[in-house]
Amino acid sequence: MDKLYVIKIGGQVLDNAEKLEQFLQSFAALNAFKILVHGGGKMATRLAEQLGISQQMVDGRRITDAETLKVATMVYAGLLSKDLVARLQSKGCNAIGLSGADGNLVKAHKRIASAVDYGFAGDVDEVNASLIRSLLAAGTTLVMNAITHDGQGQLLNTNADTIAQECARALCHSFSTTLIYGFEKKGVLADVNDESSCIPEITPVSFKELKEKGIVKDGMLPKLENAFQALNFGVKEVKIGLAEDLTHLIEGKTGTLITNE
Amino acid sequence: MDKLYVIKIGGQVLDNAEKLEQFLQSFAALNAFKILVHGGGKMATRLAEQLGISQQMVDGRRITDAETLKVATMVYAGLLSKDLVARLQSKGCNAIGLSGADGNLVKAHKRIASAVDYGFAGDVDEVNASLIRSLLAAGTTLVMNAITHDGQGQLLNTNADTIAQECARALCHSFSTTLIYGFEKKGVLADVNDESSCIPEITPVSFKELKEKGIVKDGMLPKLENAFQALNFGVKEVKIGLAEDLTHLIEGKTGTLITNE
Repeated sequence: MDKLYVIKIGGQVLDNAEKLEQFLQSFAALNAFKILVHGGGKMATRLAEQLGISQQMVDGRRITDAETLKVATMVYAGLLSKDLVARLQSKGCNAIGLSGADGNLVKAHKRIASAVDYGFAGDVDEVNASLIRSLLAAGTTLVMNAITHDGQGQLLNTNADTIAQECARALCHSFSTTLIYGFEKKGVLADVNDESSCIPEITPVSFKELKEKGIVKDGMLPKLENAFQALNFGVKEVKIGLAEDLTHLIEGKTGTLITNE
Repeated sequence: MDKLYVIKIGGQVLDNAEKLEQFLQSFAALNAFKILVHGGGKMATRLAEQLGISQQMVDGRRITDAETLKVATMVYAGLLSKDLVARLQSKGCNAIGLSGADGNLVKAHKRIASAVDYGFAGDVDEVNASLIRSLLAAGTTLVMNAITHDGQGQLLNTNADTIAQECARALCHSFSTTLIYGFEKKGVLADVNDESSCIPEITPVSFKELKEKGIVKDGMLPKLENAFQALNFGVKEVKIGLAEDLTHLIEGKTGTLITNE
């Protein structure tokens, strides 16, 4: 099977010009089938502020009201997507920027929660793996943003980590698939204040221990649960580490490898 | 050869909810290979105003400075593109929204004018016909916006009429191609104040007459020159008329047919 890399980068990389450039160079140079999934970054928050749209938060989670969704669509699917694509093109990578609405790539439904109305937040139902395979076969590299749709004409804002995991899952029977979460840390850290404490490998057994000891917590917990879920569905491996250090991350020289083996 | 329709819609249709819905229904129902090319509309102007970005005009033409380009990218390639795509998807049309940067679909260069610096305005160099053919063969309908790129990482703002014409030209040897300019008039009018004065057909001979008599002038002149250029390159026919009346326009019941025959 051909190799496929599904690589997600977060807001902190997108907001740092130097790190982003470093990441894009390594990504463009990567000689394999590849998909970039990007989140938002500060740009959407800044634009919302400029437009006087107040951010509603409930229990620490942002509520995507109609105006916030418009801003997210403009920034993620518009400015960020096209800027990433144009920059990758200039580095010889034939990138194509797509939302989940495009080609029905990611169909979702509006999140239904009994207690809280999260607004236009989408939970993924289905990934159009067949179109992704056609696009990869046509020589393009997908740059996917976290805007999805419900098939009824409604756009939805979806978690980018989830998009990456769902894409990896949907393609892992056609490709030997590596899922990479590139973020601002060297990997999963044993001590969150010590960058040198990166844990090189986490298995289901050690994950249980890390949870029990309270070493893995907060935002890292859903990321790792996501990762093990992906492995259980047939994704070959999951790596977590510095986005700008992509080459070493792929070579296994840095970062944390999440594995079922 | 299979039939292909390249259909451009302008700002006045995008800004009218009822007409746009009517157009999208007809477009979704059209059973042939098809590409929608859309311009901007008032949304970009409104967003620029909200953000306090002043519009620079020179000789009646808008100058695309860096901030205006960002707004155009957010609105055309973001909000408008994804909204059109989600709505077409809900009507059973597998739309995919793309800028000229995506998949290197439309490569352009920054317009060089001796007298005026138009800013980030792009003139088209090349259309990636091979990728468009792959996308059509994969069952998707392209929804193209007027943002292009120069291959060096710079996005550019390009005339949507030109994008439509260049796409039709690039594909006219693979498909029997009809180029349609859908706008807010019934067609080319003999009397601009009389909607019933639509000229059913214009040939190179009658075009010369219409120009000499001053019947065709202003904005209609470049549109028709564009149309004849397309025919000379091998496009089968060009039609101009009401966007929301697409079905009748295609059937030849309304609008103006531009033909070399």
